[in-house]
Amino acid sequence: MRSSLILSRRDLEFLLHEWLAVEELTKRPRHAEHSRETFDAVLELAEQIATDHFAPHNRTADEHEPRMVDGRVEMIPEVSRALRVFADAGLIAGTFDEELGGMQLPHTVAQAAMAWFQAANVGTSAYPFLTMANARLLVAHGSREQVDTYVRPMLEGRWFGTMALSEPQAGSSLADITTRADRQDDGTYRLTGNKMWISAGDHELSENIVHLVLAKVPGGPPGVKGISLFVVPKHLVRDDDSLGERNDVVLAGLNHKMGYRGTTNTLLNFGEGVHTPGGRAGAVGYLVGEEHRGLTYMFHMMNEARVGVGAGAAALACTGYLHALEYARTRTQGRPPTNRDPATPPVPIVEHTDVRRMLLAAKSYAEGGLALALYCARLVDEEQTGGSEAERARAHLLLEVLTPIAKSWPSQWGPVADDLAIQVHGGYGYTRDHPVEQFYRDNRLNPIHEGTAGIQGLDLLGRKVVMEGGAGLALLGQTITATTARAAGTEWAGYAADLDAAVARLGAVTATLWGADDPAVTLANATAYLEAAGHVVVAWLWLDQVLATGDHDSDFHQGKRAAARYFHRHELPKVAVTLDLLESLDRTVLDTPAAWL
Amino acid sequence: MRSSLILSRRDLEFLLHEWLAVEELTKRPRHAEHSRETFDAVLELAEQIATDHFAPHNRTADEHEPRMVDGRVEMIPEVSRALRVFADAGLIAGTFDEELGGMQLPHTVAQAAMAWFQAANVGTSAYPFLTMANARLLVAHGSREQVDTYVRPMLEGRWFGTMALSEPQAGSSLADITTRADRQDDGTYRLTGNKMWISAGDHELSENIVHLVLAKVPGGPPGVKGISLFVVPKHLVRDDDSLGERNDVVLAGLNHKMGYRGTTNTLLNFGEGVHTPGGRAGAVGYLVGEEHRGLTYMFHMMNEARVGVGAGAAALACTGYLHALEYARTRTQGRPPTNRDPATPPVPIVEHTDVRRMLLAAKSYAEGGLALALYCARLVDEEQTGGSEAERARAHLLLEVLTPIAKSWPSQWGPVADDLAIQVHGGYGYTRDHPVEQFYRDNRLNPIHEGTAGIQGLDLLGRKVVMEGGAGLALLGQTITATTARAAGTEWAGYAADLDAAVARLGAVTATLWGADDPAVTLANATAYLEAAGHVVVAWLWLDQVLATGDHDSDFHQGKRAAARYFHRHELPKVAVTLDLLESLDRTVLDTPAAWL
Repeated sequence: MRSSLILSRRDLEFLLHEWLAVEELTKRPRHAEHSRETFDAVLELAEQIATDHFAPHNRTADEHEPRMVDGRVEMIPEVSRALRVFADAGLIAGTFDEELGGMQLPHTVAQAAMAWFQAANVGTSAYPFLTMANARLLVAHGSREQVDTYVRPMLEGRWFGTMALSEPQAGSSLADITTRADRQDDGTYRLTGNKMWISAGDHELSENIVHLVLAKVPGGPPGVKGISLFVVPKHLVRDDDSLGERNDVVLAGLNHKMGYRGTTNTLLNFGEGVHTPGGRAGAVGYLVGEEHRGLTYMFHMMNEARVGVGAGAAALACTGYLHALEYARTRTQGRPPTNRDPATPPVPIVEHTDVRRMLLAAKSYAEGGLALALYCARLVDEEQTGGSEAERARAHLLLEVLTPIAKSWPSQWGPVADDLAIQVHGGYGYTRDHPVEQFYRDNRLNPIHEGTAGIQGLDLLGRKVVMEGGAGLALLGQTITATTARAAGTEWAGYAADLDAAVARLGAVTATLWGADDPAVTLANATAYLEAAGHVVVAWLWLDQVLATGDHDSDFHQGKRAAARYFHRHELPKVAVTLDLLESLDRTVLDTPAAWL
Repeated sequence: MRSSLILSRRDLEFLLHEWLAVEELTKRPRHAEHSRETFDAVLELAEQIATDHFAPHNRTADEHEPRMVDGRVEMIPEVSRALRVFADAGLIAGTFDEELGGMQLPHTVAQAAMAWFQAANVGTSAYPFLTMANARLLVAHGSREQVDTYVRPMLEGRWFGTMALSEPQAGSSLADITTRADRQDDGTYRLTGNKMWISAGDHELSENIVHLVLAKVPGGPPGVKGISLFVVPKHLVRDDDSLGERNDVVLAGLNHKMGYRGTTNTLLNFGEGVHTPGGRAGAVGYLVGEEHRGLTYMFHMMNEARVGVGAGAAALACTGYLHALEYARTRTQGRPPTNRDPATPPVPIVEHTDVRRMLLAAKSYAEGGLALALYCARLVDEEQTGGSEAERARAHLLLEVLTPIAKSWPSQWGPVADDLAIQVHGGYGYTRDHPVEQFYRDNRLNPIHEGTAGIQGLDLLGRKVVMEGGAGLALLGQTITATTARAAGTEWAGYAADLDAAVARLGAVTATLWGADDPAVTLANATAYLEAAGHVVVAWLWLDQVLATGDHDSDFHQGKRAAARYFHRHELPKVAVTLDLLESLDRTVLDTPAAWL
């Protein structure tokens, strides 16, 4: 596959340089060694590795999903080879400290680089994706010894990481996990229980696997307040950092998915005794931080994973869009309504308005989602290396509000872009001879994992917009208004005014919802609230992008403007309908008992 | 699989008897032999055969799709066995004349019976689906001899039928087909050319295959006006009706699809000489009706197939909904927002408002789509056996207007219902251990085949609402108003008023669109027009359904009302946004040249 079908290099350049001004970050001490040239070199490296080593086995991995043979996971060898190239290029360590072997790249650049891999082969990308997020959690919350023991080999790509939260009976409801961690006299713990849906939970791709496991220490508080976090390595590590015996983590089964098949997804049993016939009860685990604070720590990884899932959904949408565009430019069929003369040759289907409608819609979803993901990555950079403490706190707060949207919006609209990509292809798009059907299947996972859309809606309306007295929502409003103010006097002033009105209404509706004084009523339409807020945010980012196009009139910049126009004219108006519904404190669903369904 | 997970028998009873009053049809001479009991017996038979013979191999057929081996199609034996039972039950001949071995069933009852099979196993159902539509075309437009030769064995299930329209270079654009039919001295024709996407185009399920093929006779007018229709049997038929030599129709390849895999989809070459080494050029074809009128005849089959595709999309949505409902009632997880005490047991997820929202939305799409399909089947009955000629003409006209909607609306929203069915299941829904992911993949074909959504939009706005001076749209408006008038004074009066306003606006917007005096502008947003019209129609049918619930207060009837409320409160308001866009004669897409994408 040509790299131009994976992602648009031109769009990434625009987003990073013309819009998000990442070169500015080189003025900060952490990134002082960097320059536009080093950033571009990383992106070029990512493009090349994604094209040469990830894209070629995307379909193969889908057709030959991981299998469990004699208790081990077998998969096609291309995955291991691709990940070796990825790690050897230093990409796992990209954003980490030089002291840990990293490049101290800004998160914005690293997220953009990662998008190449997610678009080329999301299944294989999940292994480093999880490993990086795992390592970052340990750097933030683990002990120095844990960092030295577990993070360094992960950053070298010798070991991979997982996040093990869900259980068969507890997916969205982490309060109900039952995996138990018993404290031992030596300060370690023994874990017993079953974990479900663990991506990359077992494989032979790395020498070791570092599981980050949520479990409950007996005697702790009930519910989520009694959850602790543990490092549970597949192989125990000796004092000299060599690998010791097998820990008692047993692969109990693989899940067979509709898509995203390259990422092995596992059921893991902890403490079954299979690997420790001597009778020691439980898998050996090492507490991260303090007891009962595990969920707080895990949110570090979950928030990163949520933005990353959104980025992946956008990347899959982008590649679907690019494939559809290529097809529409080369496939001929029919004639425009102004020429029905069958003696004239058929035109490329991109000449049909309805095909351009699908492409423009897909572009607005795909590039809008990618912009959202990179904007959030830019906030991570602000949060970590921004000028003043107040600026960093603002970035943190805005990121908190945007995270459920950054997770859910591209996960909802990215699949729609891939659906449109199939439709542009007609019957061909429904066949396995074209890759778009796989993008569609792969992307369908994204509204589910790392917190379903319903969970994100509850997070946004139930927590994020009310925390700190509503400061987060206010900050979002101010940030949007800063953009609309810049549109005054431009051709975009009308769109800016519509956006201002939508923002004001979102705030008013939020107050109405919380004025209901009954959380059941307030939260009954939380998902609709999430969708409305998401459309407002993406309309804002489209406006912000076109303001960054200045007076450039290249086809590329005109395309950005066309997509922004599409989103503001065809999509933003839908928000009003949703806000009407929310404002009415609609009880249609709330008042429908289960028996009526 | 239990039949209650395939379709809701209660809903079918409601639709057929409480709403569409099919028993009334027994007063007509054609159906005089029938009664409510015979109708119900047919439906029970369909339910039983679908449950016992179709549903059990739905997943198997998906996992073992048809393969081409030595030029023949191999498939799992369950398909053949199921179709034998189907045919032996007389279901292929269901609606046909007794003189042809049929039961003279009303189309409404037959469509409802067919929905059982489409919901249980849409892939296997396609074979009789196409055979029935093929036979009906020949009964309507073929010669007496063609009916005797080809229709009788099809109705007995010994032979199956196809429709062969598309070619590799001409899918939506039939004007560009190049398959050629040369007239012979004996009155037969010889066909040469390639046909693509031919469902059931080759297999060993039946003794013979009756292809209905569009081709051009040299010297005819260009474009669609020069298309003729031919019967091209796989095996030639001798004068004594025994099978003769193999006709020159060659299986050139199979298409491998994302879903709907049980239906073999083929590339057929006509006149390659493979089966006739003697050198006769072309496959033997027999003209149906007159030369150059082929597309008109084919629309007989296409219109039926379009409503049938919509019915299938709705059936797949219904079974997805029922599976999700079952899961939501049995799977426990989490607690309502009013009880966060982790010491209390988790509740069935149907107790969560957001889960009921997904279910209610899915129900409104699934049952709304099924109602639309059955309403159209009822119009077919009116068209064919209605009281006066004027009544039959009205039914015909209304059916013409509704057909693009009956095809496209369930094909758009049925997949959304199956998407929601996955989401209700969470991660489990994304695995191949649960059937909903297959429904989602299967249903994705429906917006493509039998005319894409874009084609349906052009048909509705470009042809159906303007034909006969706009009489079709006016009739639709009157028909809807007859319903809203009946809602006066009831609790539904508010919804009726909203619907009246939407209908009035749809008419005004139609006038505005055609007032643009530039078909490129008028048709630029034809798909959006189709979507808006579809939502208005389904909102009307929901209102009409609740008016039929009378004062019954069973859970079932309350569920109908809840779904109607959902559709009117959450869905219908979206139409206003689309109509605003249409009214503005939006040029966003039209004015975006391909180079900007």
